[in-house]
Amino acid sequence: MDSMLIIDEVRLTPILISDPPLLNVQGVHQPYTPRLIVEVITRAGTTGLGETYGDRVYLDLARPLADALPGHPVTDVNALFELAGVGRPAAGERNAGASSSPPHAPVTEAGVDAAGLRGVRTADKLRLSVVSAFETACLDALGKTLGLPVHALLGGKVRDSVEYSAYLFHRWAAHPGDGPTDDWGAALDPAGVVAQARRFDRLHGFRSFKLKGGVFPPEQEIATIRALAEAFPGRPLRLDPNGAWSVDTSLAVAHELRDVLEYLEDPASGTDAMAEIAARTDVPLATNMCVTTFEEIPEAFAEDAVRIVLCDHHYWGGLHRTRELAALCRTYGIGLSMHSNTHLGISLAAMTQVAATLPELHHACDTHYPWQTEDVVTPRPVFRAGRIPVSDAPGLGVQLDRRALAALHRRWLTADVALRDRDDTATILSTHPTWTPPHW
Amino acid sequence: MDSMLIIDEVRLTPILISDPPLLNVQGVHQPYTPRLIVEVITRAGTTGLGETYGDRVYLDLARPLADALPGHPVTDVNALFELAGVGRPAAGERNAGASSSPPHAPVTEAGVDAAGLRGVRTADKLRLSVVSAFETACLDALGKTLGLPVHALLGGKVRDSVEYSAYLFHRWAAHPGDGPTDDWGAALDPAGVVAQARRFDRLHGFRSFKLKGGVFPPEQEIATIRALAEAFPGRPLRLDPNGAWSVDTSLAVAHELRDVLEYLEDPASGTDAMAEIAARTDVPLATNMCVTTFEEIPEAFAEDAVRIVLCDHHYWGGLHRTRELAALCRTYGIGLSMHSNTHLGISLAAMTQVAATLPELHHACDTHYPWQTEDVVTPRPVFRAGRIPVSDAPGLGVQLDRRALAALHRRWLTADVALRDRDDTATILSTHPTWTPPHW
Repeated sequence: MDSMLIIDEVRLTPILISDPPLLNVQGVHQPYTPRLIVEVITRAGTTGLGETYGDRVYLDLARPLADALPGHPVTDVNALFELAGVGRPAAGERNAGASSSPPHAPVTEAGVDAAGLRGVRTADKLRLSVVSAFETACLDALGKTLGLPVHALLGGKVRDSVEYSAYLFHRWAAHPGDGPTDDWGAALDPAGVVAQARRFDRLHGFRSFKLKGGVFPPEQEIATIRALAEAFPGRPLRLDPNGAWSVDTSLAVAHELRDVLEYLEDPASGTDAMAEIAARTDVPLATNMCVTTFEEIPEAFAEDAVRIVLCDHHYWGGLHRTRELAALCRTYGIGLSMHSNTHLGISLAAMTQVAATLPELHHACDTHYPWQTEDVVTPRPVFRAGRIPVSDAPGLGVQLDRRALAALHRRWLTADVALRDRDDTATILSTHPTWTPPHW
Repeated sequence: MDSMLIIDEVRLTPILISDPPLLNVQGVHQPYTPRLIVEVITRAGTTGLGETYGDRVYLDLARPLADALPGHPVTDVNALFELAGVGRPAAGERNAGASSSPPHAPVTEAGVDAAGLRGVRTADKLRLSVVSAFETACLDALGKTLGLPVHALLGGKVRDSVEYSAYLFHRWAAHPGDGPTDDWGAALDPAGVVAQARRFDRLHGFRSFKLKGGVFPPEQEIATIRALAEAFPGRPLRLDPNGAWSVDTSLAVAHELRDVLEYLEDPASGTDAMAEIAARTDVPLATNMCVTTFEEIPEAFAEDAVRIVLCDHHYWGGLHRTRELAALCRTYGIGLSMHSNTHLGISLAAMTQVAATLPELHHACDTHYPWQTEDVVTPRPVFRAGRIPVSDAPGLGVQLDRRALAALHRRWLTADVALRDRDDTATILSTHPTWTPPHW
């Protein structure tokens, strides 16, 4: 193996990035949210970039993996799972499927993970999210070394641009107390959300609109979707209450919105509830909560619980695993789209590269990216007509902005330590002490 | 995209290779069997190699694909399926899943394909077998261009050698009439098969033994497996009658051999029969007949019809698709091994490269290769302790023997045209006119 491909060093840089006060079923986004930037550096000095969740549980898993990698070639991405201990019980965990909590990360309520809304937290879910950043960084380094885009390392692109959807949020105008500010204003009723959608449409040209729901009573969110349908006739609309509804509520909303929804995303929590809803409505159900690992697939597919899986390469363990998930969905006749949580340009590039290789991606992908005012890549990616062009430059096709990285890391070092773990619930409770997780 | 990676030319060379008179449920192997060698040549003059079935139906599909490829980069293997028309109805076919027969290739009996024993023949199965050779050739060319082994293009090897099993056949000492000869002698009873196994063990060091069954009455084949178990205590044994048995016969054989079989392969034909058997025996069932495409997976997995899928990169559409199949098997808790039909060193190298990347491959792979006295690669691969080392040389790590290729192509040009389509049934009927397909 060419020594140009051997990993010499892995650098981990935890950062805190500005985030607007976006509302969801768990509370409100913190003013700053942690991310982890992974740099894999080869002996020839080529640097590959990866990005993932930055909460301390992830950092604790990333450090030993970073220590284990030097000496391995960047081509060895299949080996990352074993190196990261995927499939092995964690300390205090009876088996890989058990739901005990790793340090720093108590499960805040049954079935919901504070950091990611991806069902019960397991050690493997955390490990896979860490592996995803290392795999992306290895592929970026490999592509840069070979002069090939990442999509070519995954069998080649089948499209030249990838479509994304607008990600609409109910939000406050500003964080209470200190924090980053912006000029988007509040969106706490149908008119506010429609105004937000119009601005997204104008700025980025998105064709599809997704509303993060589960924040206001279903009647209000139904009215918001109706208002969007009126403002943007014929455009694909999605509503995602993150499992905040009962089966009956979900069915009532599906019935009300059956003529305008492209799909309804995670209306209720858990595979059984989703299956019950799916059996009683023609509105397609999508998920990034009840199917977030390969282990969860057989039951969900057997129960016909979902029609569309919203994949997320962070959840599934990287870009190769995303392609494997696509093969599973293709085999079982399940649709595919992409989920997104707060992320920067490295992950957007990774999403775009792998999405470009998937013929069966027939829905616009989610992305939080337009909400991010800071990034560690330069120049920042630009959406045109809601799409990101698929880069043919070597690797992911993004350039690290070291000054920005250093500044965001300095924030991580100096800011309140509590910000190092994202906790939307604690954040809302700090100013709204009577807030309770919504359920309708 | 670097012009070094652009395909300049694709060469197709049909050949006829010597094959011994091996017996199976469909008759006897022809003295010569067709294979197709695919060479993908880049503008920089690098040649990638692929190999697949060579019957005329495959050639007819390969030619337009070869014409379509120049100008594409060798990285674009995801695009091969669309280019080959996978998923499109064939002329005269009502839909992609229908069972109508393409020219030259009548379905000889319900559920059995004369060329490959892979269930009902469909246009897509043929196309996927053709795509597999083109994909392998593209990966070989890409690896040679980049200086990387094919396994590194698939995420890297997780083992340094791949285990194969001895493939034991009932056979005649010689073909009736003209044809290649060898000194293996006949194997038409338990003693003959044990002698063959001893020679395989001595020559190649195989640990596992598979017997191609469905040739003699089950009692005789049970006795043969018993004789092998006595001669090689504790070694993994497999029996494959290619669906020649009824459910009751299959259950009786499974019961008789329950203490010595690693698995029983395709005892009966069709997913329903396999499921019925599987429900009533603890002997694991394997298949390369009822699950040979992604479309066949959901029903077979839902019915618990098989415990092990014998993958074959020719059937499944190449090395990337083989990895996708592995992901499906991993997800559903199904074991994985590899099927083999008469093939040469290019396909053996391709099997070894992809097998090296699959952590979940826990059974020795099948290979017909030791029966082949001719090859188009040089030097010929050598089994040690039943294993093939995983080459780290660029591409597949094999070298084309152009003199051998030319000679075998000359045979294809000059021999009886009937040999251009493999037909084990016609071959046995030519000397045993009263032969009928066995069923017990």
